[in-house]
Amino acid sequence: MNKIPQGYKISTINAGFRKPEREDLALIVSDFPAFVAGLFTTNIFKAAPVLIGQDILKQGKGVRAIVVNSGQANACTGAKGYENCLNTVNMLAKYIAVLPDQILPMSTGVIGEHLKMDLWNKALPKLSNALGTKNCEDFARAIMTTDAFPKFCTAEIHLKGGVVKIAAMAKGAGMICPNMATMLAVVLCDAKISENLWQKIFADAVGNTFNRVSVDGDTSTNDTIYGLVNSASNVCVEEYELDYFAEQLEQILSKVSYMLVKDGEGATKVIHISVDGAKSDSDAEKIARTVGHSQLVKTAMFGQDANWGRIVAAAGRSQVDFDAAKLALSISDIEIFRSGQACDNYEEDKLNDLLKQPDVYINLHLASGTGSYTLLASDLSHTYVDCNAAYRT
Amino acid sequence: MNKIPQGYKISTINAGFRKPEREDLALIVSDFPAFVAGLFTTNIFKAAPVLIGQDILKQGKGVRAIVVNSGQANACTGAKGYENCLNTVNMLAKYIAVLPDQILPMSTGVIGEHLKMDLWNKALPKLSNALGTKNCEDFARAIMTTDAFPKFCTAEIHLKGGVVKIAAMAKGAGMICPNMATMLAVVLCDAKISENLWQKIFADAVGNTFNRVSVDGDTSTNDTIYGLVNSASNVCVEEYELDYFAEQLEQILSKVSYMLVKDGEGATKVIHISVDGAKSDSDAEKIARTVGHSQLVKTAMFGQDANWGRIVAAAGRSQVDFDAAKLALSISDIEIFRSGQACDNYEEDKLNDLLKQPDVYINLHLASGTGSYTLLASDLSHTYVDCNAAYRT
Repeated sequence: MNKIPQGYKISTINAGFRKPEREDLALIVSDFPAFVAGLFTTNIFKAAPVLIGQDILKQGKGVRAIVVNSGQANACTGAKGYENCLNTVNMLAKYIAVLPDQILPMSTGVIGEHLKMDLWNKALPKLSNALGTKNCEDFARAIMTTDAFPKFCTAEIHLKGGVVKIAAMAKGAGMICPNMATMLAVVLCDAKISENLWQKIFADAVGNTFNRVSVDGDTSTNDTIYGLVNSASNVCVEEYELDYFAEQLEQILSKVSYMLVKDGEGATKVIHISVDGAKSDSDAEKIARTVGHSQLVKTAMFGQDANWGRIVAAAGRSQVDFDAAKLALSISDIEIFRSGQACDNYEEDKLNDLLKQPDVYINLHLASGTGSYTLLASDLSHTYVDCNAAYRT
Repeated sequence: MNKIPQGYKISTINAGFRKPEREDLALIVSDFPAFVAGLFTTNIFKAAPVLIGQDILKQGKGVRAIVVNSGQANACTGAKGYENCLNTVNMLAKYIAVLPDQILPMSTGVIGEHLKMDLWNKALPKLSNALGTKNCEDFARAIMTTDAFPKFCTAEIHLKGGVVKIAAMAKGAGMICPNMATMLAVVLCDAKISENLWQKIFADAVGNTFNRVSVDGDTSTNDTIYGLVNSASNVCVEEYELDYFAEQLEQILSKVSYMLVKDGEGATKVIHISVDGAKSDSDAEKIARTVGHSQLVKTAMFGQDANWGRIVAAAGRSQVDFDAAKLALSISDIEIFRSGQACDNYEEDKLNDLLKQPDVYINLHLASGTGSYTLLASDLSHTYVDCNAAYRT
């Protein structure tokens, strides 16, 4: 399960940006110009590579390469940071013989730190020479910062015309660690599909997966996800296969986004929060996010404590208008709260056992409509505090 | 500084609601019907005493007594919880010879737990008999749950007609602890002032003080603040003295709300966040709250780490539209960030010393208008996680 989709080559090296022993610079080159879909952080402070990537997408020329460094986020670095990012792209363009505006730069690491240009100068020839020697796991590993494990997933999709491959690689979740500026993801596909369709399918899949995970509710300056599709398999996605293809893509992104929460800073649990019966999907989302961001709910989950009052109270302060008397709550399929009060005699021992599992399910039923939403959130542990209090010292 | 305003009597006893050694039931009776101002939680799940208190305020008859128990929040307890609350008020009414609908009930403690009616039956005669034997500190102590110290402040205001007294007593902050349902405050005053003026001045003062503190961003089911004014001093607040009187009231509430943050669950610091130069006060408030609720900012403050990237990034994700290039940030009066990048050569050693202080000041200047806001927030420590993870086990 580590197959690179056709027409892509990968390279990773240790450039010395972070630690001596770990690779921290990664490159993907597509043999053909790929259609690209991109989604970016909504933070007003956008890192230089985000600004440059957005410009490249606007041109609509197609993309030939993605270069990612770990160690310096190149965010909040002003005009010099922007200039540095352009310079790295221009230098790389010569070595791999593609146009600079067909290269997407991505950075992750400490906010406010500049790129180490002397190291980039030395690293880029080495990086270019190593093209084709590495795989998806290597790529996922080279873009890690405080991640505990590399996050990637590859899959084959069987279509009428043949097999297409997809690989998804990601690092970080939310703004999980300190001034690690954080979530980066790259998805490669070798199918033949129109640019518009790819962008729509990709954005929908991201909306249902990467946009539904939360570690601490913070939004970094660098969050970016790119989806490249380069036709290299020569297998068309036929119109009647679109739904199937979209489903498969979503499944892959879903697996990788689950890994992001699983590896959230200090996370000991993945909390699956689902809200249904709301007046609208956006109402359901607000409630799910309020519950998922509540420090009280997150610490209770860490403590394996069926502290339902906190969940109900979080829903109640979400600024969504719903009928409090109709809300029902279950945790890992055991109903605890209904009609404004605790259920009599729910199986507390069984529930306590279920709360020890690595996955916990919070379901809120509002009985007021058809709106629904699901969110994956991590818990809040001592390790989270450790990592984030002591990070720079 | 522990003087009760004229015309009020206080009683506190140990009713056995929480722990054997601590008082947990408190009563205030006013000799005269007092005008009352009340502000309540916005949570959809409102505790029974909140619902009953809101009804009493609507009648506008004036208030003679406030009764507060600690231990059971009587929230999410359905029809039985509402009935229990009414019963306690009806019983008490007989013992102290006032009308039931002139008694405001307040509860704090575990969500979902019912009032212990057998203990109330025994306690109420004792509570009534003890009237006049206790002071403001006793009251503040009896309404504590996990609070580390009692929070109260008394003051005299010198007006042309004589001296009026104010006492403010409070417990908890935000939804600081587990299913402690949390912030309760009572303010007593013996001035002579019209009902409308009192309610306006009181609401303004609360808006500038109690509504500007945050421990974990959670909003409890029981949050209530009552302000009583009973004319017992016979000293009028003249029209030209109104601003002065309002200022003094605000100062007192400000002191007590500071204590709430100081005693926030696991708090080691009070973070004073001020935002100015926003397009509007509400924009400034959004930014201040996003910074104040950011787990990353709060853990950095706990770690005494000048991690300015997190503060800037939190402002940037607040969904407020501002010019990123104009934002300037200083921490405890040392400017760190301006014009989109870190300031050169700020005194890092001095800053590190200042971060060790119990009070830290974060100032964000937006240079885009005249909107401003200040918020007091606590940091996020191991003790917070301990308290909230292990609370019920």
